[in-house]
Amino acid sequence: MENNTNTAIVKIHCPDQSGIVARVTDFINLHHGNIISVDQHVDHNENLFSMRVSWDLTDFSMPREEIRPTFQKFLGDPYQMKWTLNFTDEIPRMAIFVSKASHCLYDLLARYQSGEFRVEVPVIIGNHATLEPIAKQFGIDFVHIPITADTKDEQEKKELEILKKYKVDFVVLARYMQVLSQSFINHFPEKVINIHHSFLPAFAGAKPYHAAHKRGVKIIGATSHYVTTDLDAGPIIEQDINRISHRDSVSTLIQKGKDIEKIVLSRAVKAHIERRTLVYKNRTIIFN
Amino acid sequence: MENNTNTAIVKIHCPDQSGIVARVTDFINLHHGNIISVDQHVDHNENLFSMRVSWDLTDFSMPREEIRPTFQKFLGDPYQMKWTLNFTDEIPRMAIFVSKASHCLYDLLARYQSGEFRVEVPVIIGNHATLEPIAKQFGIDFVHIPITADTKDEQEKKELEILKKYKVDFVVLARYMQVLSQSFINHFPEKVINIHHSFLPAFAGAKPYHAAHKRGVKIIGATSHYVTTDLDAGPIIEQDINRISHRDSVSTLIQKGKDIEKIVLSRAVKAHIERRTLVYKNRTIIFN
Amino acid sequence: MENNTNTAIVKIHCPDQSGIVARVTDFINLHHGNIISVDQHVDHNENLFSMRVSWDLTDFSMPREEIRPTFQKFLGDPYQMKWTLNFTDEIPRMAIFVSKASHCLYDLLARYQSGEFRVEVPVIIGNHATLEPIAKQFGIDFVHIPITADTKDEQEKKELEILKKYKVDFVVLARYMQVLSQSFINHFPEKVINIHHSFLPAFAGAKPYHAAHKRGVKIIGATSHYVTTDLDAGPIIEQDINRISHRDSVSTLIQKGKDIEKIVLSRAVKAHIERRTLVYKNRTIIFN
Amino acid sequence: MENNTNTAIVKIHCPDQSGIVARVTDFINLHHGNIISVDQHVDHNENLFSMRVSWDLTDFSMPREEIRPTFQKFLGDPYQMKWTLNFTDEIPRMAIFVSKASHCLYDLLARYQSGEFRVEVPVIIGNHATLEPIAKQFGIDFVHIPITADTKDEQEKKELEILKKYKVDFVVLARYMQVLSQSFINHFPEKVINIHHSFLPAFAGAKPYHAAHKRGVKIIGATSHYVTTDLDAGPIIEQDINRISHRDSVSTLIQKGKDIEKIVLSRAVKAHIERRTLVYKNRTIIFN
Repeated sequence: MENNTNTAIVKIHCPDQSGIVARVTDFINLHHGNIISVDQHVDHNENLFSMRVSWDLTDFSMPREEIRPTFQKFLGDPYQMKWTLNFTDEIPRMAIFVSKASHCLYDLLARYQSGEFRVEVPVIIGNHATLEPIAKQFGIDFVHIPITADTKDEQEKKELEILKKYKVDFVVLARYMQVLSQSFINHFPEKVINIHHSFLPAFAGAKPYHAAHKRGVKIIGATSHYVTTDLDAGPIIEQDINRISHRDSVSTLIQKGKDIEKIVLSRAVKAHIERRTLVYKNRTIIFN
Repeated sequence: MENNTNTAIVKIHCPDQSGIVARVTDFINLHHGNIISVDQHVDHNENLFSMRVSWDLTDFSMPREEIRPTFQKFLGDPYQMKWTLNFTDEIPRMAIFVSKASHCLYDLLARYQSGEFRVEVPVIIGNHATLEPIAKQFGIDFVHIPITADTKDEQEKKELEILKKYKVDFVVLARYMQVLSQSFINHFPEKVINIHHSFLPAFAGAKPYHAAHKRGVKIIGATSHYVTTDLDAGPIIEQDINRISHRDSVSTLIQKGKDIEKIVLSRAVKAHIERRTLVYKNRTIIFN
Repeated sequence: MENNTNTAIVKIHCPDQSGIVARVTDFINLHHGNIISVDQHVDHNENLFSMRVSWDLTDFSMPREEIRPTFQKFLGDPYQMKWTLNFTDEIPRMAIFVSKASHCLYDLLARYQSGEFRVEVPVIIGNHATLEPIAKQFGIDFVHIPITADTKDEQEKKELEILKKYKVDFVVLARYMQVLSQSFINHFPEKVINIHHSFLPAFAGAKPYHAAHKRGVKIIGATSHYVTTDLDAGPIIEQDINRISHRDSVSTLIQKGKDIEKIVLSRAVKAHIERRTLVYKNRTIIFN
Repeated sequence: MENNTNTAIVKIHCPDQSGIVARVTDFINLHHGNIISVDQHVDHNENLFSMRVSWDLTDFSMPREEIRPTFQKFLGDPYQMKWTLNFTDEIPRMAIFVSKASHCLYDLLARYQSGEFRVEVPVIIGNHATLEPIAKQFGIDFVHIPITADTKDEQEKKELEILKKYKVDFVVLARYMQVLSQSFINHFPEKVINIHHSFLPAFAGAKPYHAAHKRGVKIIGATSHYVTTDLDAGPIIEQDINRISHRDSVSTLIQKGKDIEKIVLSRAVKAHIERRTLVYKNRTIIFN
């Protein structure tokens, strides 16, 4: 529904108070906005109210540029809201960072090219050149930016320049094997999505399938999360798992894991593109 | 949350119109009801609005007996709502019908006795006496009502009398191997919950595990649904599945299936007890 | 393991008798074959013994061309075996049939190109030309063979000629929306793999997601099976499912279903390529 | 099959060598044992061969008491096997240790009483008396052995005496909230089965659901493992998971977790009873 018409999406969080749902939906109704979906959640422990509401702009009587100031004045300020407003005709621009593994890149690009993701992918950045042919295959610019411990600072600056040049809104790390610096992350807060190949918090860090095999688990998983300065500890967007057995070697774990990584990353990216994610206290709310 | 305090639960469905969420939440706020949860859904194809809202009655300014007529006047009538109101301090009374298989009965009674279900179980009815000792074990009345094709009418009347005597609100068929008559079902519309041992609509009718084995499926399932006069075709409340393999015989399917049946039935019963289910057009909405 | 060295794979089924495992493994040991894996299964109801055994050929003392006649004489004949022998250095050749939906094709080609499937894909056949650009993108020949009710016979003949020309061993229907004739199937018995977008036997035939939505199921699935002349009734190789809810419309079911279709089809294709499937009585054994 | 007739079960592990499967199955065939199932696995990294084979004793020509010495002489010694032999008419005796939580106890006892487990349960030991009524309900002896830091040594001795008195073969910790001492565990090596309420190795130790909620995971799990002197680090027998969301509070996690704990523990206990588990290098092989 939200993609078929020009739609506004508001995400809110604020201290829980009486009447917020009523006030917000009133605001939309009053100006003849046809509500497409409402999802709200109250975390009673944290006394936190959160909400996502979307409405069809076709008959909305308020000019687009007035929505933000009006909403801020009549709702944002009185309820101490942190809130965002997006329009579905503003297509977000996504960069993909890769190293050598191709499975997540292929999966993202196939979804992009077939129209499953409502997004633009103007550029792929690799610290290796291995996957450049795939970028070519899909007609997307590829920039090779090798990184060593010594060159990290300057190379990350280059990356940021490229992201700026391509007007990138958010970054997906599709099995990118470099740790981003705090400085880089600060440029894209809650805008860098990673896929980690374990069900976090188990097996954080390097070589999780080796660790899983050694521990003898009966289930492996993957976790997509927003990147924070704490390695593999950012807010989790999505996780999934697959059963394994004693028959699996490290190499079959790696193979089976790829399918989970792809699906978990794609779900997280989709939720982000559709503005269904909200982060607070290092956790996420994923709205319907 | 809803069980900790005295809570009102309203479930609504009506033609979709602007402003319903705002009007309903306003009504509660106005009388100082503290909203615990709201979940709404619009089926755009059917133009159907549905909603479940619950609020704490502690500070609610309207006497309990006035809620119904007031809500009907100001909301129910104008919006052509079909709606129900329940209070969590009114504990529903559940009867369990059984034949010979014990696994679902044990599971329901263990949940009941440990306080997992907010429900009363005053009586168990069996068309066989096999499970009477389990009823005794848990201190619950057991009534043996054998049924044959010839005695069905009169025996169902007895069942209805017993349900009346024990003031039963709804009935759970815990692998009860008799088909209820239309007349019986009409006494308990959307109040009889069955567990069928297949992922419906596959393998409706008798001996689904035999049929699943014959067909060579790689997954078996179970389905809990409200009973209608169409056999195994009522609105589905919950389903789940388990992977199987060529190694499974019919008897291991039956064994593995028991675990799915128990969990699916218990989730459906819990959703019903908590008033999270809403039926329309032979489908269910399961509210958060 | 099996892919790292030159390996022989034998699949057997025959009436169950004492000593078969011992005789077969003896045969391999005697000629200094190092067994990599053994998996056997006895279906006691059908009195059917089945087995898959693979061994490293590095030190195997018998010339490759003598294995078949010797095995037949000393094992096949005495035990009335139906059996096959394959070598992992004989790479099977797979054709993909498509219509307009791209998701399964992308998924198969990405796995193929990244080396996940040990297979050759010389040709893609489409009854529409829609996906020709994807074939080009991956550097694979695409043949457009439109089919109408009137042209079906002659067009299928063309398809068979192309399969012959490209020396195709087996065919994957990647959401190919045409029913193959009995004559076509007879040319490729247990060699045509289909993906059906429901958990069969539920929702066989056209538009399964529409049917699933109408029935109000809480789980959708996909099924990969060998194609037989009975529509959607061939032996099932793999199935998987995904949970859905009342929030899902037909279009989100179709979207969510794609992910299951891809993964189920790829697992089935992989099992076939690795010679892990064995069909009997319209069911499959999937060896470890 | 194995439970229907008098069956012998042999579990083996040893360095991988040619011909073991042939030799072992030959041994059984030679004495007219009808093999019911064979499952073998080679861990090529560890060069470890493992196998479970079961056969019907009806026509077996060797007296039962001669099987062990003969097998040891002709197979165990030459192949440096570690192996065990069991007969399905020797019913193992299982003790259950509990604290206050009832869900796993109920589940185990319902399975026991309905004949799902081929086991005897002569005694339940609790460090609290809370669950004594449930033991009574099922007609099983209950012994209350309270434990404090000061009394641990002497109380564990009492427990061991009771296990001896009741001729207990293995112990199931059904949410028993005490850590067993090294000395206790040494009396029952690979004979104490625990259920931990997280997907280990994530959230080892106390209050895993609180930790899971804090971390914001989207999946919770449970793990059944053999108890070793390393807390929550013993060989894993079985794991399973359930999806959760931001809507779940700690208390709903605890509630949803119970269902996973029950099913994971029961599968592990069943695998142990049926002699399908084999431990090596702190991992398990679970035979078919």
